[in-house]
Amino acid sequence: MTALVRIVLIDPSHPGNIGSVARAMKNMALGDLVLVRPRDFPHAQAIALAAGAEDVLAAARIVDTVAEAVADCGFVAGTTSRPRSYHWEFMTPRDVAARIAGLPVENRAALLFGSERYGLANDDLQHCSMLVRIPANPDYCSLNLAMSVQLLCYEVFMARENPASFVQLDQPLATSGDVEHFYAHLHEVLGDVGFEDRTGHLMERLRRLFNRAQLDRNEVNILRGILSAVQGRRRQSGTPHER
Amino acid sequence: MTALVRIVLIDPSHPGNIGSVARAMKNMALGDLVLVRPRDFPHAQAIALAAGAEDVLAAARIVDTVAEAVADCGFVAGTTSRPRSYHWEFMTPRDVAARIAGLPVENRAALLFGSERYGLANDDLQHCSMLVRIPANPDYCSLNLAMSVQLLCYEVFMARENPASFVQLDQPLATSGDVEHFYAHLHEVLGDVGFEDRTGHLMERLRRLFNRAQLDRNEVNILRGILSAVQGRRRQSGTPHER
Repeated sequence: MTALVRIVLIDPSHPGNIGSVARAMKNMALGDLVLVRPRDFPHAQAIALAAGAEDVLAAARIVDTVAEAVADCGFVAGTTSRPRSYHWEFMTPRDVAARIAGLPVENRAALLFGSERYGLANDDLQHCSMLVRIPANPDYCSLNLAMSVQLLCYEVFMARENPASFVQLDQPLATSGDVEHFYAHLHEVLGDVGFEDRTGHLMERLRRLFNRAQLDRNEVNILRGILSAVQGRRRQSGTPHER
Repeated sequence: MTALVRIVLIDPSHPGNIGSVARAMKNMALGDLVLVRPRDFPHAQAIALAAGAEDVLAAARIVDTVAEAVADCGFVAGTTSRPRSYHWEFMTPRDVAARIAGLPVENRAALLFGSERYGLANDDLQHCSMLVRIPANPDYCSLNLAMSVQLLCYEVFMARENPASFVQLDQPLATSGDVEHFYAHLHEVLGDVGFEDRTGHLMERLRRLFNRAQLDRNEVNILRGILSAVQGRRRQSGTPHER
């Protein structure tokens, strides 16, 4: 278990965005939402866009100041797409997520998001230890509010869970022995049909291709069945076949 | 410079989502959008939510089939939140982005997104080499369509700026169009040799196997040469051959 993460929206003006934020948070297993001076909330549009994350909306806390929103947090980062003057640490979402994942469980972390139109005000920055900038197209770098929240929550999820890619199998992979029998059979059929190996590397290339695919048992059976069908029909059609 | 990346939306039903997708793409410096059978497009709601990315919407191509959408692509990945049966490689957005960043510049990559309600259909998967699953809350894992696109585009942007592991290619991957010609040829030869399709899913399984292998141009040429050899010898040996 790592530190809890709070999403703080400051002066959000569109209730639809609040709903989308709730959904984005719940998708990434976060549930602590604080709204600072929301213009229209609660609102039907928020509920519509929450699409199943109404529990996050219902639990959202509404406060008047940023100070109140982050009072119990040990770590506060603000998101911004604007360059800022003065001495600031600018982090990527990935690095800030790693930092959060490394916090002790007693600490609660807050990520601050400014209003749709103006972003974070200078006063809001007073509460932040660092700023997060989402890497983006320099010519068009302003993301939708809920999109920004989604990206940050996703990076937090990734940093906590560290999920990896995997191969899903229908059934076990074929053994190397079985695959060798397939290659031998394939080689035989290539001879039968008179396929010319111009480079002398034909089997090597075909092995690379099929090895890359990582054949399962059923696939090897299908391929061998096809090879047998090629041979069978050739035999039926009267061509002599030597083994 | 790395391979160009195309976003393909299949049966999108809400024009607002198409607009949000355009904005998400442009934020991450992508501009190639293809819509397969959009329900309502063009639409004022799409333009409103594009918020400055109208150029991406204006350049979007509308097609009738997924095959058309990916014909010139050498790398096709589908996004899904559902478990799938059979043998599939499931990748994280991060890993698929790294793979894309490592493609040769001649190859175009496509990321497929299914409809808001149903996701990718089984038929759509026939065009994919691998599936991408966005890591999410297991109890609430269905992200908004535009959010999913945002996350993938963000990972592509991150991977391009900071490339990591890669697949080394001898030469560019074959385009989906070329691979389709191979499948048609294979299907013809299977008929010629009288291979029995007991389950009715033979071509589907073979497609999955070869899609997973991600054939390069040379490999497609070799495979087609073998198919021609099978047909040629059968003809020479006197078996009547119907086309």
